[in-house]
Amino acid sequence: MSPEPTKTDQATVFQATVFQAKVFVTLKPSILDPQGRTVERALSHLGQQASSVRVGKLIELQLEGERGEVEARLQDMAVNVLSNPVMEDVRWELEEAGVVAQ
Amino acid sequence: MSPEPTKTDQATVFQATVFQAKVFVTLKPSILDPQGRTVERALSHLGQQASSVRVGKLIELQLEGERGEVEARLQDMAVNVLSNPVMEDVRWELEEAGVVAQ
Repeated sequence: MSPEPTKTDQATVFQATVFQAKVFVTLKPSILDPQGRTVERALSHLGQQASSVRVGKLIELQLEGERGEVEARLQDMAVNVLSNPVMEDVRWELEEAGVVAQ
Repeated sequence: MSPEPTKTDQATVFQATVFQAKVFVTLKPSILDPQGRTVERALSHLGQQASSVRVGKLIELQLEGERGEVEARLQDMAVNVLSNPVMEDVRWELEEAGVVAQ
């Protein structure tokens, strides 16, 4: 007979929601994008016509906590760490990815 | 009196639809992402906790033509030029941005 797992009435399981965040960082329209120009020329040399090519960043990350607090942290990271407000625009998406016990 | 612009009955105005495309290029989950690790550590040093940070690319471009043909061209560019199918996943979005006379 296998032993029963010990149970404590006072045991409290803390659960945290995991959120999957996506942060999109793009150069402001007034800023030249040499990388985009290079991609545009490369496409053109391959016979593919495209214009206004701009290369930005997509940063994916996971955050744990309560939605309101996670949203505030994500905004802080996106605006103050992950992007340069002088040259870049930033926007973000947040979606629930699951729940973990802590 | 200013001269009237010349008009030809046979004149045909060719119009092309302009599409704004977004291509999202991310490293495959099995591929290590040192840039993401660096961002994760930088956030941690700033007192911001985030996990599974991955840095990908967001390529924005404009394409002209008829929707079906533009979709095919975009898929070709995304899969064969803008991403490396060995190491990267790619997905794309296409939305109508306007109409131009050609």
